[in-house]
Amino acid sequence: MHKVVQNIARADAEVIAKLGQAGVATVHEAQGRRGCLASYMRPIYRGAQIAGSAVTISAPPGDNWMLHVAIEQLREGDILVLAPTSPCDNGYFGDLLATSAMARGCRGLVIDGGVRDVRDLTAMGFPVWSKAISAEGTVKETLGSVNVPIVCAGQAIDAGDVIVADDDGVVVVRRDEAAQVLKSAEKRLAAEEDKRARLASGELGLDLYDMRTRLVEKGLKYV
Amino acid sequence: MHKVVQNIARADAEVIAKLGQAGVATVHEAQGRRGCLASYMRPIYRGAQIAGSAVTISAPPGDNWMLHVAIEQLREGDILVLAPTSPCDNGYFGDLLATSAMARGCRGLVIDGGVRDVRDLTAMGFPVWSKAISAEGTVKETLGSVNVPIVCAGQAIDAGDVIVADDDGVVVVRRDEAAQVLKSAEKRLAAEEDKRARLASGELGLDLYDMRTRLVEKGLKYV
Amino acid sequence: MHKVVQNIARADAEVIAKLGQAGVATVHEAQGRRGCLASYMRPIYRGAQIAGSAVTISAPPGDNWMLHVAIEQLREGDILVLAPTSPCDNGYFGDLLATSAMARGCRGLVIDGGVRDVRDLTAMGFPVWSKAISAEGTVKETLGSVNVPIVCAGQAIDAGDVIVADDDGVVVVRRDEAAQVLKSAEKRLAAEEDKRARLASGELGLDLYDMRTRLVEKGLKYV
Amino acid sequence: MHKVVQNIARADAEVIAKLGQAGVATVHEAQGRRGCLASYMRPIYRGAQIAGSAVTISAPPGDNWMLHVAIEQLREGDILVLAPTSPCDNGYFGDLLATSAMARGCRGLVIDGGVRDVRDLTAMGFPVWSKAISAEGTVKETLGSVNVPIVCAGQAIDAGDVIVADDDGVVVVRRDEAAQVLKSAEKRLAAEEDKRARLASGELGLDLYDMRTRLVEKGLKYV
Amino acid sequence: MHKVVQNIARADAEVIAKLGQAGVATVHEAQGRRGCLASYMRPIYRGAQIAGSAVTISAPPGDNWMLHVAIEQLREGDILVLAPTSPCDNGYFGDLLATSAMARGCRGLVIDGGVRDVRDLTAMGFPVWSKAISAEGTVKETLGSVNVPIVCAGQAIDAGDVIVADDDGVVVVRRDEAAQVLKSAEKRLAAEEDKRARLASGELGLDLYDMRTRLVEKGLKYV
Amino acid sequence: MHKVVQNIARADAEVIAKLGQAGVATVHEAQGRRGCLASYMRPIYRGAQIAGSAVTISAPPGDNWMLHVAIEQLREGDILVLAPTSPCDNGYFGDLLATSAMARGCRGLVIDGGVRDVRDLTAMGFPVWSKAISAEGTVKETLGSVNVPIVCAGQAIDAGDVIVADDDGVVVVRRDEAAQVLKSAEKRLAAEEDKRARLASGELGLDLYDMRTRLVEKGLKYV
Repeated sequence: MHKVVQNIARADAEVIAKLGQAGVATVHEAQGRRGCLASYMRPIYRGAQIAGSAVTISAPPGDNWMLHVAIEQLREGDILVLAPTSPCDNGYFGDLLATSAMARGCRGLVIDGGVRDVRDLTAMGFPVWSKAISAEGTVKETLGSVNVPIVCAGQAIDAGDVIVADDDGVVVVRRDEAAQVLKSAEKRLAAEEDKRARLASGELGLDLYDMRTRLVEKGLKYV
Repeated sequence: MHKVVQNIARADAEVIAKLGQAGVATVHEAQGRRGCLASYMRPIYRGAQIAGSAVTISAPPGDNWMLHVAIEQLREGDILVLAPTSPCDNGYFGDLLATSAMARGCRGLVIDGGVRDVRDLTAMGFPVWSKAISAEGTVKETLGSVNVPIVCAGQAIDAGDVIVADDDGVVVVRRDEAAQVLKSAEKRLAAEEDKRARLASGELGLDLYDMRTRLVEKGLKYV
Repeated sequence: MHKVVQNIARADAEVIAKLGQAGVATVHEAQGRRGCLASYMRPIYRGAQIAGSAVTISAPPGDNWMLHVAIEQLREGDILVLAPTSPCDNGYFGDLLATSAMARGCRGLVIDGGVRDVRDLTAMGFPVWSKAISAEGTVKETLGSVNVPIVCAGQAIDAGDVIVADDDGVVVVRRDEAAQVLKSAEKRLAAEEDKRARLASGELGLDLYDMRTRLVEKGLKYV
Repeated sequence: MHKVVQNIARADAEVIAKLGQAGVATVHEAQGRRGCLASYMRPIYRGAQIAGSAVTISAPPGDNWMLHVAIEQLREGDILVLAPTSPCDNGYFGDLLATSAMARGCRGLVIDGGVRDVRDLTAMGFPVWSKAISAEGTVKETLGSVNVPIVCAGQAIDAGDVIVADDDGVVVVRRDEAAQVLKSAEKRLAAEEDKRARLASGELGLDLYDMRTRLVEKGLKYV
Repeated sequence: MHKVVQNIARADAEVIAKLGQAGVATVHEAQGRRGCLASYMRPIYRGAQIAGSAVTISAPPGDNWMLHVAIEQLREGDILVLAPTSPCDNGYFGDLLATSAMARGCRGLVIDGGVRDVRDLTAMGFPVWSKAISAEGTVKETLGSVNVPIVCAGQAIDAGDVIVADDDGVVVVRRDEAAQVLKSAEKRLAAEEDKRARLASGELGLDLYDMRTRLVEKGLKYV
Repeated sequence: MHKVVQNIARADAEVIAKLGQAGVATVHEAQGRRGCLASYMRPIYRGAQIAGSAVTISAPPGDNWMLHVAIEQLREGDILVLAPTSPCDNGYFGDLLATSAMARGCRGLVIDGGVRDVRDLTAMGFPVWSKAISAEGTVKETLGSVNVPIVCAGQAIDAGDVIVADDDGVVVVRRDEAAQVLKSAEKRLAAEEDKRARLASGELGLDLYDMRTRLVEKGLKYV
């Protein structure tokens, strides 16, 4: 039942990079307001903005053995994504694992559980989005799986899906939709530039988006 | 049922400014330990300390249409205060809305829901106190109301009430009590200066506040 | 029933200092993965790393009277540790109490409740690990006890136990186990240096820790 | 600051009784989807369905003194509604207070805190909607107020407002809107009878409510 | 983007029925401890034990329009499974929708949100497993989808997957694994009968499962 | 480090039985409002009221091996009390373990985690107070300890301490304080009888407890 899938497909590297530049909120909108992980997933430090291919990990509660297994599967530009099989806030990951993951080209970790050594990780510039920060460690006794479909913080994620993460949280983009989502994101970004300038000059969203008629039709009263 | 109240009374601008300088904890004490919003309301960045008049928004879950309506009602020095009609962590507000609100003189946002684009908001210096940070966006389909009485994070707030917010959280002061609360706050601040000096010199609170007799009367034993 | 224990034993000062340098995650591992307080205990600012002897406080909900009593019991290098007798997020502690505690040599506060004046506390360099930040103050009406055994954030803590706290959270070490735990921690730290270098060079944990055979025995399949 | 308002206005007894028969969900809809207390407010036993006039209590955390004060203010058909000034799950209320309240004609308790002796209360037929069940008792040391405006479980409630509670939770109706809300509720109930019969016979809501055209206009695709 | 998938495959009816008899805990074990929905999913009344094919619903927060659409897709023996696109405790479902669903042969509802009219639903014998009970209603303004893959209470669920639910909670079985999981469940049930008799007679699990040697090897000391 | 303490002292059986009759709320008051476990500990069914000696279990998250070990240590009248070493809602305990525990004279289970097979446990009359109900099972891979001091749901509990549990929750009484607490509880119960009769006749608590003067002194105003 427990397995490691070794050869996974990944999205195009340039598409991934540009999705990272677009950021989580824009990518989320660009794919029809889908794909955000639960809002309890918070960065351990502010300012990191990354995108990469998911190497997924299904791990037992309180057991980080599969992280060692997963690190061997990393390629340059990947992001580790771990979901415990039942809720667990333990600190699965610290500075030694980060050292190893960075040496393999890993860009960060998304974990629906806990992380520790956050001061070291911050100093190393290894970003993590997690449910908890906890010094409470784990054992290496029970198997899980690597690169299988998981549900992480409320979203189904498959190995090779694109993960985008920044100060707003984390969003997942299906691997085979990545190019299409990027196109849509780029359109939004272009449109936003103009809107931002007009709003900054004092023009109202009510006028810019032509909302006044529809508000009246729905029954809004000004008193 | 859905309405926008256009002319609201506000407290005196100088009183508001001084309440902001006093800060949340002092103002809360000065009005008899009342008015603090729930402690889950956290600033998206540290260091902002503001006060202003509430422009209140009652909005459906997952629908930020009323924010556009509310921005038109803003005057210099106002603070947007949004309460969803049922619990919702969606990101109702981002950098475009902040650009628009700042152009109208808005000092910040207090929202019993989610906010996004927090890196941009931080760079812009637009402070937000929220229940969540979430990239998950909203729709513009259902009406709410602006400048009606709301309950936000456990406190009843009316349009024109004074909002004070800093790193400790958010407190509301009734508009017609603002001047009186300020007087009481200023007395506290003056008294604190002397206490701080005496405590810093090593004098004990037990002596400074003359607590020893009452502790014995209540039955405290030293062993 | 309510009492203040005045003379408590403390661990050796040098042992305490070195446990502080080792940090929470290492100390936690060194004592057999025991002693971490619940992960909701978060520092009010990042970067502090302290160790000291616990002066324990059992306090009623919403009543901070015993903090004044406890401050008299502080010696240089102590840490205040407060557990409410039932859950309470009120701001028990602010800048005046911190001023007084610092004047008595206190290194910080660990509180399974709320704290306020966090901007001032940050500026003063007085670290606090708490369950909440809340401007909502307390009264001084009901007794508690000082230097009695308490349960704080899920851990039993006795007066004089060693508290270690950093960005990862808080761990407690029994006073009479402190020297032994330090020995074990120092061994771990020495071993980690070598591992870090090897992992940074690209060696895998699977090889470094010799895990491959056991993974196969447990039934892991590579596909 | 602490006060007991002795003479409060109440809604018409017959209106209250009929609102109780309509039940929480219907009343909530009838007043425009407003007024529900937070869904964590649960009945201590199933099957009670009551309505009455609110005698409101603002009480400190962990202190039930004001319940004794409030009981004197009860009239036949009233409901006690207690909001702690900061979150507290303590058991404020048990069988002795219930005995006293029942002797004064009280129909039940709504408390954004804890209750105890729930086996006795169930046997007595005294219904309670609460945030928690907790044997942890309270003190009688600090004042609060009776029959002042409170915020209870997310809703602003004033003395004399109508409270309706059943297995679905609790809803508040403003005293001066009670008659109007009842009219609207009765219309809904009449309309539901017909709908129920048609749905039971297999007719679809899509047809009964004529939704098909609008679904297509909004863009729903059948595949 | 919003769609209704009309023809979905279902598992064999007899297999579904027998999975229902096996119950949630046994089925969960039988498929390798996978598939349990989060433990906050609780039945509105005790004693129901059902199994059926999932008709999945992805719905916006606070909007139950898609339930009407989904009911048309029901066949005898199906179970409605609803996941909001962002967390929402509103009461999406009540006695009228249950009347309609029952008329179409529906066996129950699993909803990662709220339900209302629970007294009526209990009287009707229509079981619901939900995250919340809430009288707070919803609107019918925004589209979702029916019979698309969803994540509900932490589990990925596809239309036609088998849902088993009882007092212990809810578990999902992939449609194409249902027959295999049933075989494994039946083996477990047969084995349990014998174990139950031996344990009831006083034999210890330590002996029945032959654990003593392994406990000693792992280092357990009896003192 | 992992051990089983085989011979533990227990309190007097008659004292235990009478504490059980007094119930949780009374016992909690009788020992100075101490000892209640967190209010999230709820019975799986209503009406059970038990007392017994704690056989304590410290278990890893998601691993119920130590329950088998603990059952061998049970004597007639004991109660199993399990605390995971980090938070875990898994179903550690079901009908087979209950069968075994009942055969050894066990009166119930208190678990700061999850339980399953609750329908069977209810039918068997084996009461459980737990944090969660979850079908999600556990493994038997990692050691813990039996009859060592634990912290369970916020209370420190030692083997042989007296556990009292009923519909209000769970309270722990130190073994060596049990007789003294019983005396105090019996006094309370005797006093309550008289009070109940007077309150039922309409006498107010304000008069019965002579509160009026003190309320005025504290500053309460009747308006």
